[in-house]
Amino acid sequence: MEFKSWKHMFKLDPAKEISEEQLEILCESGTDGILIGGSDHITSENVADLLVRVRRYSIPVILEVSTIESVTSGYDYYFIPMVLNSSDTLWVKDLHHEAIKEFGDFMDWDELVAEGYVILNPDCKAAKLTSAKANSSLEDVVAYARMAEHYLKLPILYIEYSGMYGSPKIVEAVSKELTHTQLFYGGGITTVEQAMEMSKYADIIVVGNIIYDDFENAIRTVNAVRHTI
Amino acid sequence: MEFKSWKHMFKLDPAKEISEEQLEILCESGTDGILIGGSDHITSENVADLLVRVRRYSIPVILEVSTIESVTSGYDYYFIPMVLNSSDTLWVKDLHHEAIKEFGDFMDWDELVAEGYVILNPDCKAAKLTSAKANSSLEDVVAYARMAEHYLKLPILYIEYSGMYGSPKIVEAVSKELTHTQLFYGGGITTVEQAMEMSKYADIIVVGNIIYDDFENAIRTVNAVRHTI
Repeated sequence: MEFKSWKHMFKLDPAKEISEEQLEILCESGTDGILIGGSDHITSENVADLLVRVRRYSIPVILEVSTIESVTSGYDYYFIPMVLNSSDTLWVKDLHHEAIKEFGDFMDWDELVAEGYVILNPDCKAAKLTSAKANSSLEDVVAYARMAEHYLKLPILYIEYSGMYGSPKIVEAVSKELTHTQLFYGGGITTVEQAMEMSKYADIIVVGNIIYDDFENAIRTVNAVRHTI
Repeated sequence: MEFKSWKHMFKLDPAKEISEEQLEILCESGTDGILIGGSDHITSENVADLLVRVRRYSIPVILEVSTIESVTSGYDYYFIPMVLNSSDTLWVKDLHHEAIKEFGDFMDWDELVAEGYVILNPDCKAAKLTSAKANSSLEDVVAYARMAEHYLKLPILYIEYSGMYGSPKIVEAVSKELTHTQLFYGGGITTVEQAMEMSKYADIIVVGNIIYDDFENAIRTVNAVRHTI
């Protein structure tokens, strides 16, 4: 898949404002792709609006599906999260089943990508929403990584600290378990140093909130990643 | 994988008695493999005992893992069920996570096979044990098949009617959805006609209980399958 060689993505939240000027800088920054996703105030309107705006640039756009209602055509890929540390089947496979039951006849399966998710910030909205066991130990997380790589053979494992900078030790341990499964890291990257640190272990780092809080530093993470190879 | 070309398997229940003579006839009947599994009274002793007995013959032996305790080395493959219509994460991925956490360092990953399971007999023990939504409609089951083939890309989807002969219409509909995922059918096959009917749609039929109830007819299902190509 195209994103196999990527190293950096920006994650845009449809519920947050971004100016036209900033969006242009972001899309032409050298980042590998734009991930559209969020867990709060997601509507079919604000998602569709953001897609149209990003589509003015030549950058690949991916929808990370959090609600069935937000899905429209027009993306390069659809990442479908499977929350490996959720204690509710809804977020492991039931929403997926429901969506396939309703829209299966119209799906372009080649654009769907199963995205294993491990949510590790107990205070984030995603953890609460999905009843995730976010206080997982290093051993727990390593076992999820092995499950993703060897049992489920997932194309992606996303270690998500949403809003909090995570443990490089955990991300490093996960990276050692993965060969075929691509490792995404997201959460709390606000500086060039953090971007470089997580890029040592993750195949792709995802930079999100800082876009809205400190745009200049967000843009700097793009080049930071290029220097860690 | 070796079992990609198989058409027939016998499923032996470690908690049930089988004579040495019958076991020999079974293993040399022309069936493609012996699946060891059950949901009741499974102990590490009776499972290990059965493995040793089957290993006297040259037939491939597979353990369908229902409890972590029953796992020993010595099988050709280990099928690890993921119950797609369970409403309890335990049977979807938590037991798997627990086992990987405990034994991950010693696992031979190439022998592990993810086996999607859809349990469709509401009265069977497996359905109760796993809190399976066994009253699934045709549309539900087709959506599970699409999930197995396209989203999870599972090597196996096992349609399980455990103890009850299932709906050929459902098995036919599932077979039309699967290309890469191999379709197993199990449940209530007691005659040559039923074996032939389900073999029209399933890649592999699994013959179980009838071994213990009507051994002659069980053996006849092996050749029945050969004639349906």
